[in-house]
Amino acid sequence: MIKAGIVGATGYAGNEIVRLLINRKDVELVRLCSRSYAGEAYAGIYQNYRALTDLECQEEDMELLAEEADVIFTATPQGYCASRINKDILSKARVIDLSADFRIKDIREYERWYGIVHQAPELVDEAVYGLCEINREQIRQARLVANPGCYPTCSTLAVYPLVKEGLIDPDTIIIDAKSGVTGAGRGAKTDNLYCEVNESMKAYGVASHRHTPEIEDQIGYACGRKVRISFTPHLAPMNRGILVTAYASLKEGVRAEQIREAYGKYYDKETFVRVLPEGICPQTKWVEGSNYVDVNAVVDSRTNRVIMMGALDNLVKGAAGQAVQNMNLMFGLQEWEGLRMAPMFP
Amino acid sequence: MIKAGIVGATGYAGNEIVRLLINRKDVELVRLCSRSYAGEAYAGIYQNYRALTDLECQEEDMELLAEEADVIFTATPQGYCASRINKDILSKARVIDLSADFRIKDIREYERWYGIVHQAPELVDEAVYGLCEINREQIRQARLVANPGCYPTCSTLAVYPLVKEGLIDPDTIIIDAKSGVTGAGRGAKTDNLYCEVNESMKAYGVASHRHTPEIEDQIGYACGRKVRISFTPHLAPMNRGILVTAYASLKEGVRAEQIREAYGKYYDKETFVRVLPEGICPQTKWVEGSNYVDVNAVVDSRTNRVIMMGALDNLVKGAAGQAVQNMNLMFGLQEWEGLRMAPMFP
Amino acid sequence: MIKAGIVGATGYAGNEIVRLLINRKDVELVRLCSRSYAGEAYAGIYQNYRALTDLECQEEDMELLAEEADVIFTATPQGYCASRINKDILSKARVIDLSADFRIKDIREYERWYGIVHQAPELVDEAVYGLCEINREQIRQARLVANPGCYPTCSTLAVYPLVKEGLIDPDTIIIDAKSGVTGAGRGAKTDNLYCEVNESMKAYGVASHRHTPEIEDQIGYACGRKVRISFTPHLAPMNRGILVTAYASLKEGVRAEQIREAYGKYYDKETFVRVLPEGICPQTKWVEGSNYVDVNAVVDSRTNRVIMMGALDNLVKGAAGQAVQNMNLMFGLQEWEGLRMAPMFP
Amino acid sequence: MIKAGIVGATGYAGNEIVRLLINRKDVELVRLCSRSYAGEAYAGIYQNYRALTDLECQEEDMELLAEEADVIFTATPQGYCASRINKDILSKARVIDLSADFRIKDIREYERWYGIVHQAPELVDEAVYGLCEINREQIRQARLVANPGCYPTCSTLAVYPLVKEGLIDPDTIIIDAKSGVTGAGRGAKTDNLYCEVNESMKAYGVASHRHTPEIEDQIGYACGRKVRISFTPHLAPMNRGILVTAYASLKEGVRAEQIREAYGKYYDKETFVRVLPEGICPQTKWVEGSNYVDVNAVVDSRTNRVIMMGALDNLVKGAAGQAVQNMNLMFGLQEWEGLRMAPMFP
Repeated sequence: MIKAGIVGATGYAGNEIVRLLINRKDVELVRLCSRSYAGEAYAGIYQNYRALTDLECQEEDMELLAEEADVIFTATPQGYCASRINKDILSKARVIDLSADFRIKDIREYERWYGIVHQAPELVDEAVYGLCEINREQIRQARLVANPGCYPTCSTLAVYPLVKEGLIDPDTIIIDAKSGVTGAGRGAKTDNLYCEVNESMKAYGVASHRHTPEIEDQIGYACGRKVRISFTPHLAPMNRGILVTAYASLKEGVRAEQIREAYGKYYDKETFVRVLPEGICPQTKWVEGSNYVDVNAVVDSRTNRVIMMGALDNLVKGAAGQAVQNMNLMFGLQEWEGLRMAPMFP
Repeated sequence: MIKAGIVGATGYAGNEIVRLLINRKDVELVRLCSRSYAGEAYAGIYQNYRALTDLECQEEDMELLAEEADVIFTATPQGYCASRINKDILSKARVIDLSADFRIKDIREYERWYGIVHQAPELVDEAVYGLCEINREQIRQARLVANPGCYPTCSTLAVYPLVKEGLIDPDTIIIDAKSGVTGAGRGAKTDNLYCEVNESMKAYGVASHRHTPEIEDQIGYACGRKVRISFTPHLAPMNRGILVTAYASLKEGVRAEQIREAYGKYYDKETFVRVLPEGICPQTKWVEGSNYVDVNAVVDSRTNRVIMMGALDNLVKGAAGQAVQNMNLMFGLQEWEGLRMAPMFP
Repeated sequence: MIKAGIVGATGYAGNEIVRLLINRKDVELVRLCSRSYAGEAYAGIYQNYRALTDLECQEEDMELLAEEADVIFTATPQGYCASRINKDILSKARVIDLSADFRIKDIREYERWYGIVHQAPELVDEAVYGLCEINREQIRQARLVANPGCYPTCSTLAVYPLVKEGLIDPDTIIIDAKSGVTGAGRGAKTDNLYCEVNESMKAYGVASHRHTPEIEDQIGYACGRKVRISFTPHLAPMNRGILVTAYASLKEGVRAEQIREAYGKYYDKETFVRVLPEGICPQTKWVEGSNYVDVNAVVDSRTNRVIMMGALDNLVKGAAGQAVQNMNLMFGLQEWEGLRMAPMFP
Repeated sequence: MIKAGIVGATGYAGNEIVRLLINRKDVELVRLCSRSYAGEAYAGIYQNYRALTDLECQEEDMELLAEEADVIFTATPQGYCASRINKDILSKARVIDLSADFRIKDIREYERWYGIVHQAPELVDEAVYGLCEINREQIRQARLVANPGCYPTCSTLAVYPLVKEGLIDPDTIIIDAKSGVTGAGRGAKTDNLYCEVNESMKAYGVASHRHTPEIEDQIGYACGRKVRISFTPHLAPMNRGILVTAYASLKEGVRAEQIREAYGKYYDKETFVRVLPEGICPQTKWVEGSNYVDVNAVVDSRTNRVIMMGALDNLVKGAAGQAVQNMNLMFGLQEWEGLRMAPMFP
């Protein structure tokens, strides 16, 4: 029995970890921490859990959690995990951090994009970037996993095989991403009110979104050098889902078959990445509620570009599901344990 | 291993049965029948099942299904099941019919409301109305289960304890129900296009909806006499969910505590009916994707009425989930097997 | 040229008054007041008005407004208007109050339902309830108009003819109303976040909503005595629109034709009330963006009840549109001036 | 008084022309043609027009229309207008064609992308591409206007100034567009059912959408040579709106100020193009129901690219509104006549 604790349990990502773990027979939720709701019944905040849990929200306390839990999920704002974690905690419990604190290896780059002084620079090297399909073996050994961002997961998985196989020019990559509103979190802001986002589409964080360096790092690892890409997120009027449409110029002489082969090479054995049949474009609804990522690409011979597409549920494969997938790997379980539920459609 | 077949597998209810059974280790989907899509890969129609099933849609054939399957789900239009079923089929396989064919015991009433001549009147008596919380014991023995309608399930469970305990006057019951659009099915009709129903509310089938006699029957059984109620369904711009708001006059001298006690008496031991704490109104999102029904009531002393509320997911507890719950009962399994997933929020 | 000022201009109702007046050639917007946004460009808050207005938000100041404006719209929280208005202001400018302050004649009832001590009880008698179709003549003479609530406008117009003509028993009236989310205002509350209300239906304010006494007053005036009704509002996942479904028992011997005749008698000459053809139920989308109210009724001979339905846009006929209709009447203009735009569909 | 007729009046674009013309005092709707609904009351199909029009749908008859009307709007499928129009009709009435029949000057290119043999090649040269902000003077003289597509209008207006001024490399233009569902028309297809598109995002027509050559033509005219661009449309879960996000590499030495100056140069005097303040991204909701296009751009110095954005209502500026704007120009009226309604928010 794995004992699990969650810090930031009342955010949407924390809530989704609860959904994925609450019925598992091999995992016990020992503590749900929430600064804002300490003392309240968890099922009183997320009423979907009525009759499913009697847990009360507790004050955040990493020390205590490290004593009680085998694994701690931190689904907290940037800076929290880095400011509370230390070697002592890591010696007692594994930590899966859903914030960006340990995703970027270059601390100065992290500090520049996030505007925060990193509080635990000595742990950055040890942290493993938890993109399971790419870093599986290191994750198995990790004490500290930096759970990838929602956009970087979808973006990286959509473009990775083509970059890795040298089929596209990395400097031409442009990523246009569309996200559901859960990605904006549960904070009570006017901008996220129903009537402000319903029936509307907009770009935001244009040329300045913090997931940009994270995506660039992963693409850079794949092609062996630093790259700069364009990344533009958009807000779409739906609860869940990220759709990535990525553009790049094909290297000279690359043929359409090579594109499909590259996806096959990296994903045919993957449980959670589904390469769709030719001509079928990913849709976010087809992965909703599940840990799947659907990918596909179309070659445009007129422009010599390839259009790569990826779709996932930002709260599952883009956050909580991938965190649980990481937990499964770290504890020697089947990677897909508790994660093979079919997507819910409609 | 229970072998299950589905007729009408490409409708929304059929698709939901697939979702609920596809990962079960004690059930095997042996055949998915669909008149419209015979010969096509099921995962090509419902792309959420990519990598989850290789099954192809087959022509509808009840005889063949009865040979192959232990249980047949008919998620088909009114009249289909009655026209294909017979004693021979029932001797080989259990049948759970999601249509209205066997829900109403008075055949003339069925024929009047549905405008169809019943093709198997001799089987109506044998059929058990599959509202598990009320008819559990008979369901265990049944060969033929009439799976309740979505509105009747939600309406009956919301009002049943108060009728049964004699706390309200059955003749004053008014049920105002709101449903998501999956309830209208997957037929390609202009009225169900995105742009026709999005951002809109409307009543339909006013004073004439076919679920009316079904609800009246169940309330009638509870109070021991024939009753007439008002039932008005509405279409709400959302995929899933039914919310029932029901009104009735309290019998003289009834106190608010008795209302809560009545719900407790019938539902405290039920896995899937959650009586919410006082003052908390059911919301459809809190049960989405799950087999739960949330109920509650508010006493209005100004008018001496009680307002009873119920919420469920019309595709789960209102259709496929209840069908699986019935299957579990019929095959001697735990009633909640494969059905305890937490609701998905948001 | 009528000079108009708005207090509470940055709420959704205030914003809608701006939309309705901004292009009128006979009205000039002289001042937009907003406590929260004073000093900011109005088109910076409601970006739909880019290129349409250069007005800046100003501090709220009723005295100053009374000097500058011929008419003041107060689209403010309960209590504001009553606390700032006085005879001096009314001697200089007409006031149309969109809050509930002057809607209820019985001051103790107002104070009980709203939990506020009324600050201007001496003006309550003078105030005219601005339901144009019913109080047209008094409105023409009024200095102070209490603009009706959104639910009361829709509810009253749906049931009024049948009550007035004595066709239904007022004590049996049950009103089940469904509203879009703009009705909840623009305050930054978790409950109104996109992801909290999207894809969900719920009742709220059950047996306790503040619009109840307002509706009861209007029905009471129609039938000449005090009545108590049941009123249950619901939140529906859409921006705009109210749908009212109201139930009542028919008085003995009332025939269906009398119902239609009653609607015709009161509404055939009305510009903004459309009695739909028999069998056509109102839909909120059919009135969106317009000042129309669609009404209809179905007689249910099985239960001897009539189901009355009404649909309007809560921000237009339910708030700003009716306020402008009142202004038109008060200033001797055509009642429909600036208000005959067709509903927007889809 | 301009007499106007509409062919294809029961599609969403036709319906929107009705909305824009129905209250004009200088235009009379003389005939609404609809193959599918001939003989039915128009207000019975689009119930929003109850009390606003008594017109009945008529059979399509261009000859008759040319006799009766001064201007004919054809809001019809590709090929219709070209197959019915001729010099005789054009000598009697102006024609504004909302289909693609006369948008592309290279007939072979039209036939290749649309898979149709052009039935009126002799009229292609005469037709004027009705993008008012660019071809205003020719439109004034035109007998036949090819009303631009929704995506091409938004795309062209977003990138035009930068191409025309030579600030970006046209060969690097990538256009990622998101559209509401009205763009898919009112045909009863499973793919456009509420439950199939709600809560989902997808790309479609990747590297093959028919609006591509139309956009390429317009960009080509601006830079004086043939160009090839990437264009990817997406379906977003909302009724109305197109958001275009376009990417291009800056020519060497181009500074951010030049970008803003270019937009100012072409749009400062335009009624319907609003260049938003620096840092404000267009949102489709801010233009809903109106004829406005909001544009803006962000320079990304890291990648030396510019991200250009545009938002419009696909049924107004993207179809019916622009058609009316064209009509205004052709008949010597103020260009903005009947089109200056404020966008509706929320």
